[in-house]
Amino acid sequence: MSDEIRIGLEVAAASAAELGVRLDEAKSAGYEFVASPLTNAALRQATQTVSAPTFGLPENRAFALDQVVLDRVDWADSVVGRHAAWADLSDAQTRIAAEMVLQREATWAMHLGVPATILMLPTELSRVPNVARYVNNLLRSPSYTQLWIQAPMTTTIRDETEGVASCDEDASWECWNLLRTLCGHNARVLLALELTADLPDEGHLQRWFAEPLVALVFAKDIWLRNAKGFPVLGKCHQATVRRMLKRQPQVIVRAGTHPGAKLEHYQQYVRHLARTQPPPNACEAFAVGYQDYLQAPLQPLMDNLESATYQVFEQDPVKYAQYEKAVYHALLDRVPAGSDVVTTVMVVGAGRGPLVTRSLAAADKAQRAVRVYAVEKNPNAYVTLQRMKQTQWQDRVTVIWSDMREWDAPIKADILVSELLGSFGDNELSPECLDGAQRFLKPDGISIPSSYTAYVAPLSSSKLYTEVAAFGQEARFETPYVVLFNAVHELTAPQPTWSFHHPLRDADTGDLIGNAKNVFTLAQSATIHGIAGYFDTVLYKDVTLSIHPATFSEGMFSWFPIYFPFKTPIYAPAGSKIETHFWRLTDCKKTWYEWSSIVTTSDASPESADSSSNAGSRTRLVGATPIHNVGGVSSWIGL
Amino acid sequence: MSDEIRIGLEVAAASAAELGVRLDEAKSAGYEFVASPLTNAALRQATQTVSAPTFGLPENRAFALDQVVLDRVDWADSVVGRHAAWADLSDAQTRIAAEMVLQREATWAMHLGVPATILMLPTELSRVPNVARYVNNLLRSPSYTQLWIQAPMTTTIRDETEGVASCDEDASWECWNLLRTLCGHNARVLLALELTADLPDEGHLQRWFAEPLVALVFAKDIWLRNAKGFPVLGKCHQATVRRMLKRQPQVIVRAGTHPGAKLEHYQQYVRHLARTQPPPNACEAFAVGYQDYLQAPLQPLMDNLESATYQVFEQDPVKYAQYEKAVYHALLDRVPAGSDVVTTVMVVGAGRGPLVTRSLAAADKAQRAVRVYAVEKNPNAYVTLQRMKQTQWQDRVTVIWSDMREWDAPIKADILVSELLGSFGDNELSPECLDGAQRFLKPDGISIPSSYTAYVAPLSSSKLYTEVAAFGQEARFETPYVVLFNAVHELTAPQPTWSFHHPLRDADTGDLIGNAKNVFTLAQSATIHGIAGYFDTVLYKDVTLSIHPATFSEGMFSWFPIYFPFKTPIYAPAGSKIETHFWRLTDCKKTWYEWSSIVTTSDASPESADSSSNAGSRTRLVGATPIHNVGGVSSWIGL
Ligand SMILES: C[S@@+](CC[C@H](N)C(=O)[O-])C[C@H]1O[C@@H](n2cnc3c(N)ncnc32)[C@H](O)[C@@H]1O
Ligand SMILES: C[S@@+](CC[C@H](N)C(=O)[O-])C[C@H]1O[C@@H](n2cnc3c(N)ncnc32)[C@H](O)[C@@H]1O
Repeated sequence: MSDEIRIGLEVAAASAAELGVRLDEAKSAGYEFVASPLTNAALRQATQTVSAPTFGLPENRAFALDQVVLDRVDWADSVVGRHAAWADLSDAQTRIAAEMVLQREATWAMHLGVPATILMLPTELSRVPNVARYVNNLLRSPSYTQLWIQAPMTTTIRDETEGVASCDEDASWECWNLLRTLCGHNARVLLALELTADLPDEGHLQRWFAEPLVALVFAKDIWLRNAKGFPVLGKCHQATVRRMLKRQPQVIVRAGTHPGAKLEHYQQYVRHLARTQPPPNACEAFAVGYQDYLQAPLQPLMDNLESATYQVFEQDPVKYAQYEKAVYHALLDRVPAGSDVVTTVMVVGAGRGPLVTRSLAAADKAQRAVRVYAVEKNPNAYVTLQRMKQTQWQDRVTVIWSDMREWDAPIKADILVSELLGSFGDNELSPECLDGAQRFLKPDGISIPSSYTAYVAPLSSSKLYTEVAAFGQEARFETPYVVLFNAVHELTAPQPTWSFHHPLRDADTGDLIGNAKNVFTLAQSATIHGIAGYFDTVLYKDVTLSIHPATFSEGMFSWFPIYFPFKTPIYAPAGSKIETHFWRLTDCKKTWYEWSSIVTTSDASPESADSSSNAGSRTRLVGATPIHNVGGVSSWIGL
Repeated sequence: MSDEIRIGLEVAAASAAELGVRLDEAKSAGYEFVASPLTNAALRQATQTVSAPTFGLPENRAFALDQVVLDRVDWADSVVGRHAAWADLSDAQTRIAAEMVLQREATWAMHLGVPATILMLPTELSRVPNVARYVNNLLRSPSYTQLWIQAPMTTTIRDETEGVASCDEDASWECWNLLRTLCGHNARVLLALELTADLPDEGHLQRWFAEPLVALVFAKDIWLRNAKGFPVLGKCHQATVRRMLKRQPQVIVRAGTHPGAKLEHYQQYVRHLARTQPPPNACEAFAVGYQDYLQAPLQPLMDNLESATYQVFEQDPVKYAQYEKAVYHALLDRVPAGSDVVTTVMVVGAGRGPLVTRSLAAADKAQRAVRVYAVEKNPNAYVTLQRMKQTQWQDRVTVIWSDMREWDAPIKADILVSELLGSFGDNELSPECLDGAQRFLKPDGISIPSSYTAYVAPLSSSKLYTEVAAFGQEARFETPYVVLFNAVHELTAPQPTWSFHHPLRDADTGDLIGNAKNVFTLAQSATIHGIAGYFDTVLYKDVTLSIHPATFSEGMFSWFPIYFPFKTPIYAPAGSKIETHFWRLTDCKKTWYEWSSIVTTSDASPESADSSSNAGSRTRLVGATPIHNVGGVSSWIGL
């Protein structure tokens, strides 16, 4: 995959003739394309002499031949066109002429079929609105030509009085964020990120990962020279590039200036980085194609899973091993060695039987006698269970076709084994099912899992948000999605919402209803597009499974995280507090989640705190989402 | 109108029998209804002994007869039911039982057909989310019974250590605002505002005016006693009540405690306030029925106005007088007294002719000879113009049926009179039309109006926002509306965006395109639902017309303000800056506006400002709307 990378060379051609030369050079140095201005100084001059254009919007004034740099359609495929940098949309004097120039360049590029044009993002907030209006308007017309917005990773603040320069990690991203918001989170606003000499710290860097990265631009001054005189990058830049390359952007190289280096060296170096990306591990290999792909969560209770789905489950290298270990330790703890007591193990929701097989293996290993029941409500899986009994388990196992909530068990179980867990722990209704199965667990019986916990964290991801928006239905914002995060910035460490413990202490509604408020503090400002959900589970004592990022069960691929979207992203300033509110609700037909988020700051309010007392700091609302999925109107899990 | 006020008496009945007595008392004291608890302490006790309810949501547990206070359907019409105040949705222990109680009370009230139930708003932010979730869910089911949320105007902060109490003007409104936001700006969330002893200052008071006020609750401790021993209100409370009564809320009275006062006295006093509201002035009389009613702006260029519309215009007591004065002074200035020069006055867009008549009157008064042309493109109005000429104006006037932009004028005008103005000044395309008419104005000629300016200010109005939302189409949020503001909080003084001067200096696109950024600072936090637009115009020298609130032409009713909505309200914390961005754009077929708003704070960032220099304060984005109506996609004015 990584070898398919498209690399372009930055050139500064001033005429069609020059572009031809540069393009030939670039191609023979191994580049796929060049990034070049579309027009030249002649256009700039012509524009300055013309006063404001005549009535009607600019589109109707044509370029003169000597004003364009790219003029051949057969070159168009190999050129990404840079918009005139001098066309300033912010200045009241030049604004109209500037818009005319940009508009003409854009339509000229579309006319030739150029794959993309690049517009520089201003790095002052006050200059963004006019650019946003222009961009927004341009993107209304469907076009093959993409618009890339080039933003530097960091900018430099120069202190004129002291003559020192410092690195600003915020300005560029804040401008990008404003642009995107003003453009209504339009999915056609794409990011060409410039790798600058100053790199941001990890937190600031991660923000860029949540953005729709289409290209990576290598600045001139990031190149070093190695012992042999070849251009290379420093350690940090290398690491950053490697991470970015996973997102498969196109690359634009600005060649460095040191003598000996040839054009092909840069290209070869970048390709070398791409080729030597560490190979994907088992998880990553499994993940290919799933990244940022939104799936509706399974409804294993209401629907019957297909054989292929079981097949995928069963390949997990971690989950079943852990279950076996859990059953093994439970047996050791429950029955003294050498005893001839027969332990009743009931696997409820047995699927095609892997937990049955593992329970038997655990018993063999523990040298404890067991009698296993396999209960499954899916009639198709039940067929497979019967075959398993016939061919493998024989008399040690009784297979039952029944909903565990209704099964009239002939005896009570010592150990109840189940795996009814979703990405958010309880979202496949494990609590409700086990609440129903508990009747036939002995009072001192063991449930495996013994507990599970759901976790949440606010996340930032233009990508996921626009994917949901693309469905074009409000209700789709009120649905959680199972999704492998890629272009996602997980803003803080997750926090637990609620846990379920089995056997349930006092099985009633109260135990099945959940309500959690979590408060997160953000170091940097961020736009929040929703909430990430994870779970972990204690199968038995210290035998656990987890998809919580910090405790992730290495190698396990049975569960992706879950994403609860927001209808409208909310902005959280640096230092603000983000509350997430979650409710797990249930009636006799369904279970569902409602969620919302509130952003507050605490304001020191110096005026009010003057004389005395407790009025010191006060919580101020910055923003709030509506409560999503009220009454389960848009998404629910059938009971 | 004001005598139709419905007044209720607060009672604290604990049983059905007692409610009967209280209701009789209230009715014979002249009240229309009582506000009473729906259930009593017996229910509370029963709830406390029951542990959490059984599986499934609470609805199915019925009240016992002795737990309800209201049990007769024939009383239902005369009772507004208070929800159990002890049912605490915030406390993890009681939450489920509390929700059961509220839910049962609500369905019981609906069952009986009670007009409304009242739920108290918590006054701590942290308690709001659970209430919001409950409310939101309840309002999903259509019902005749309204839900009123009772919020106090101010709350009291007690400083335990010093034993002093101070008035908090923010907490209640912030909680209300959060509730409303969490409920997705649901139009069924209605406000019962409690008039407290401490009144907020004007700014804080005004915020409440933008809210969907359904009832006004008089607190116990606001009543004074006049010389004759009757209960009365103090000056400030009186003034506040009078302002609130314009919104026609229902009233609930909590009787004061001083001896002599009888129940009927309170009722009589409130009715007295309502009856002695100052009578509506001409403007207000005209306004009845228009308040907060959204009208699409006229398109007088593309469409032809109806005779009835002209009829309404022509009744304006101010506009025509000012035009006459303007023409009068222009004639005096242009032609020396006694001269027999004939001045050519052209009324372009003459409608049914009032400005022609006024121009002639001005000439008579000024004793200057004039020759008047009346140009009108509406063929129907042209018929009326011909009759006016025949019956009144005779040879002094030539009437022309033509679009002024195309008319081939036989001579050039000295004075061009027009009234093509909209609520936002240029929004009925006065600039474009006069740009076309300018050809036949002498180089030193006078245009009346000589200029006009558009003004904007951020506004807060749940009412207007929900009106737009009720259309159920995204595009309706990208359309400006002409609307007489009532439940609107104009947050700050308006600022000018752009002006047009006639004759246009250099008539080209540049002159017709507008771009304005305005920055407003808010003293209090607010939720902004859109932007208010106004205009003023200089007809000639100091003869002006204005709908700008500060310079409003008293008595004029030709124009209501204009409202540019936001798709999603944005929250602006106290002290933040609100930028509004406006663009006036035009192509050869249409003119349109685009708008957006950005909220920023400047953050002192103490960490970065430590050692030295300019990095002191920094602008931080708090939120931004998307740019509305990009490319005129949802609303435009046809050329
Ligand atoms: C996530 S799968 C796990 C299958 C298998 N134990 C495994 O680990 O590969 C859950 C299984 O439980 C079954 N199931 C869900 N709810 C059930 C219920 N109430 N009664 C019986 N089976 C149920 C589903 O049909 C499904 O086969
Ligand atoms: C707001 S009305 C004013 C009518 C009248 N002068 C008055 O003040 O009552 C504007 C009038 O201008 C006319 N009008 C608008 N654009 C015009 C154009 N381009 N040429 C001629 N008449 C126009 C409309 O038909 C309408 O009658």
